[in-house]
Amino acid sequence: MNDTFLRACRGEGVDYTPVWIMRQAGRYLPQYRRVRERVDFLTLCKTPELAAEVTLQPVEFLGVDAAILFSDILIPVEAMGMRLRFYDRKGPVLSRPVRTLDDVRRLRLAAPEEGVPFVLETIRILRRRLKRVPLIGFAGAPFTIATYMIEGGGSKSFLNTKALMYSSGETYHALMRKITDMTITYLTSQVKAGVHAVQIFDSWAGALAPDDYKAYSMPYVKETIKALKPLGVPVIYFVNNCGGLLEYARAAGADVIGIDWRVDIGSAVRRLGQRVSVQGNLDPCALFSSVGVLKAKVADTINKGRRARGHIFNLGHGILPETPPDAAKALVEMVHELSSR
Amino acid sequence: MNDTFLRACRGEGVDYTPVWIMRQAGRYLPQYRRVRERVDFLTLCKTPELAAEVTLQPVEFLGVDAAILFSDILIPVEAMGMRLRFYDRKGPVLSRPVRTLDDVRRLRLAAPEEGVPFVLETIRILRRRLKRVPLIGFAGAPFTIATYMIEGGGSKSFLNTKALMYSSGETYHALMRKITDMTITYLTSQVKAGVHAVQIFDSWAGALAPDDYKAYSMPYVKETIKALKPLGVPVIYFVNNCGGLLEYARAAGADVIGIDWRVDIGSAVRRLGQRVSVQGNLDPCALFSSVGVLKAKVADTINKGRRARGHIFNLGHGILPETPPDAAKALVEMVHELSSR
Repeated sequence: MNDTFLRACRGEGVDYTPVWIMRQAGRYLPQYRRVRERVDFLTLCKTPELAAEVTLQPVEFLGVDAAILFSDILIPVEAMGMRLRFYDRKGPVLSRPVRTLDDVRRLRLAAPEEGVPFVLETIRILRRRLKRVPLIGFAGAPFTIATYMIEGGGSKSFLNTKALMYSSGETYHALMRKITDMTITYLTSQVKAGVHAVQIFDSWAGALAPDDYKAYSMPYVKETIKALKPLGVPVIYFVNNCGGLLEYARAAGADVIGIDWRVDIGSAVRRLGQRVSVQGNLDPCALFSSVGVLKAKVADTINKGRRARGHIFNLGHGILPETPPDAAKALVEMVHELSSR
Repeated sequence: MNDTFLRACRGEGVDYTPVWIMRQAGRYLPQYRRVRERVDFLTLCKTPELAAEVTLQPVEFLGVDAAILFSDILIPVEAMGMRLRFYDRKGPVLSRPVRTLDDVRRLRLAAPEEGVPFVLETIRILRRRLKRVPLIGFAGAPFTIATYMIEGGGSKSFLNTKALMYSSGETYHALMRKITDMTITYLTSQVKAGVHAVQIFDSWAGALAPDDYKAYSMPYVKETIKALKPLGVPVIYFVNNCGGLLEYARAAGADVIGIDWRVDIGSAVRRLGQRVSVQGNLDPCALFSSVGVLKAKVADTINKGRRARGHIFNLGHGILPETPPDAAKALVEMVHELSSR
């Protein structure tokens, strides 16, 4: 197995900069859309043979250095007893949002083998079929999961989440306690089923003021990462919109900090120091550049990333559905070529 | 006239921290909603007596240290020949988005007295009726205006804007040239009509990678600010989602940098240095806190802001429509009380 990705996570020497792409199994790929013509998104997540198939699609087509389990961060939330639906334009909707201590008490903590057996089965299939590169498992960060549970879906202002934090701290922290316990159990079960690394997605951390991030998100991520340490797999912590948060995010103790494109990776490396690897951070829109512009951006990201303990090249956010598949393929080749020693 | 706001902009001594609130004339106020029951948003912007009335409402009700002209950053874009409509849920829509050099050439540069006479008339009315505090005029930053013109409205990914930047640089820069000329003329006319300060809103700057911000947004803001310098009024440059951009934003040469809530104001002051004042940056959601939590957040912001050359207290973004008016009023009192020497 090509372990370049895992070596970069740990800060060990590599022959080139490894690369994978957030949402690399997704709508921009015609082969993915063909599978989705047959099943809806949730069914796809819950059908191990199909979830494994779409996980493998970009590994073969793009030549990336890691696969990431096809699933969604809200899958384990459904197993906690909330009704989950996905709409093409509106995104996820969770019925009966969590707003009171009673709502929190009603949430179940099922064993993953009972609540989300299909996720673990997908991992087992992938461990048999995926030989070339490591497999990444993942979960949402507790704060990010909490926003969906409190808002009942996506949000622009996160007003309900923050109002709960600022005026009903007991309820907020009780909910975070429960989500954190779920997340630890969930990620542990993924590692035991065979993933080689895990990524924790804090997609909405960047909606918090830094002091609030420090009080309301980071401690729960830190606890999650600490619980995973004995399992010995690298933990990537993706902090979206991290410009104001990097110093605090570092304290969560991940092996790798994933950063979005709104910070300069050189400046991020300086702020994060040499005890952590960095993942990122090309603007997903850069895949719509002329070749010369793209090449300059990729070279700059690689060169700045070299100053980190370890660098995994990635986009700074999920690849856009409008992206031409060949542009993604060309990106992967470019990263390999430009970074080879 | 209470000139505390203007003194803080210039970094002169003040007896207390001045405060105003972005979107202080807006939907959270019942007196504003009563006016809007009679006229739609665009009509309100274009009816000087009514625009002046809603501009004055928060000055009286909240006791803020500055008034800001009631208008919208897209008003001068309509005068450039694009059709503008506002929808309650969807926001602004501009017909026939700008995508080619021909589209750019078709844009008009009308004199403000002809294109937007109602804005200047609103300012003249306000200069007669507003005695207590200074009046702030405003415009969108050229990049932010460009995003609306290219996308045809709001956007999540700004894909069309960035694709134009990255693949048709000539068209992008020709558009920015024209918008910048318009912005300079527009703000100059506002100052000549009587505003005491201007704010440039770069609402979407934070969607750019720092190197892109430096190449595609900042130079045009810098040019705008330079052109305004001889007029002698303070220029505030609000950079939304500024976490990755502060060092570059400083180079635009504004008297005051307005910051959003996603950065720590203490850290922002360190990064910006002592040649510029700072405006901001309480999370708008903090107005939904219990009193104790709010007070601690306000005190912290004031204390960290004291280390700046000058500090104007504000929210880190526009006040939310759901905000209880009394919470906004209490905030203003709290800022005055906690910051008085």
